[in-house]
Amino acid sequence: MSKSSNTVWHQATITRSNREQLNRHGSAILWFTGLSGSGKSTLAHAVEDELYRRGCRTTVLDGDNVRHGLCGDLGFSEIDRTENIRRIGQVATLFVDAGVIVLTAFISPFRIDRERVRMMVERAEDFIEIFCDCPLEVCEQRDVKGLYQRARKGEIADFTGISSPYEQPEKPDLVIDTGHQELSACVSEVISYLQQRKLIPAL
Amino acid sequence: MSKSSNTVWHQATITRSNREQLNRHGSAILWFTGLSGSGKSTLAHAVEDELYRRGCRTTVLDGDNVRHGLCGDLGFSEIDRTENIRRIGQVATLFVDAGVIVLTAFISPFRIDRERVRMMVERAEDFIEIFCDCPLEVCEQRDVKGLYQRARKGEIADFTGISSPYEQPEKPDLVIDTGHQELSACVSEVISYLQQRKLIPAL
Repeated sequence: MSKSSNTVWHQATITRSNREQLNRHGSAILWFTGLSGSGKSTLAHAVEDELYRRGCRTTVLDGDNVRHGLCGDLGFSEIDRTENIRRIGQVATLFVDAGVIVLTAFISPFRIDRERVRMMVERAEDFIEIFCDCPLEVCEQRDVKGLYQRARKGEIADFTGISSPYEQPEKPDLVIDTGHQELSACVSEVISYLQQRKLIPAL
Repeated sequence: MSKSSNTVWHQATITRSNREQLNRHGSAILWFTGLSGSGKSTLAHAVEDELYRRGCRTTVLDGDNVRHGLCGDLGFSEIDRTENIRRIGQVATLFVDAGVIVLTAFISPFRIDRERVRMMVERAEDFIEIFCDCPLEVCEQRDVKGLYQRARKGEIADFTGISSPYEQPEKPDLVIDTGHQELSACVSEVISYLQQRKLIPAL
């Protein structure tokens, strides 16, 4: 008989709280939602940049690192969009358990999909919904990727704001006026909020 | 016209290398593979425990936190197992990009599925395949969850080692004799390897 076949192998468990202690900050999901071109991804990366300077552990999930990988098998139909947001929500909760502040930047147009993510987290306050409030006209004027022009021509189906609805958050934790403010002002508002919530220490 | 509609919002980027500097260790996937009962999950958690003591940022992905969440829609057919491992691989690469040492504990019986994960990572050496080498007899004798008994009775279909194949790694980065060694000895072997590879500093 093998030497250790009767040995009990004790299961060690490092908890989220252990990790938060090591990191010296809390973990949470910062869920940026808004129209295409409203500045979600840029703002998420800029907030991450500031958090990095402060020694925080972070990650950004956005179309660039999720759409071709984890969700590479999904399209843009309503059912696929729902599954897309579900998977992102699940991955975000894994990062929260790992003690990481995870910033997600997806249009996530449907209220029910965002609410489902809020239901996934351990504590409701782990999910911080940040509405990037930018008028459709401004997004369309920016049109960085030329997507609005193509959507107006009918070349893209189900385009949020044009041919598919965007359901604004009813009670977002934070509204950032990304349509009229400079980026640095937007970043400051998010950072102040995180300090108020005591997720990160004041400088 | 809105004030900042013509302002270019510069996209900040915190890189994996930035994060590794902040953490003072490298990131990688430690992919534990082996039969049910071979000690993958226990070993992964015990290695994480030791890494935590050393101030490393880690996370464990195993059935407990993935099977009901991210992969809750998948069963145990060959096609679903392949999709399961694909998603886990994608999530693991997101953690690696975030500077985290991610320890995965899944039977992952098919060589091709594990090789696909190796192809997902930025550098082949980011994927460290650790074979938990434990004879089927020992796993079956332990039978912590009573699964082997149920599989032998035919109550579980496609059970690895009984009614479904386990394809042993051909060139694993590390082979740990989890069938005959104490847990602490197994942990030491993994930690030594990570030091040799300079992923973590020597104490």
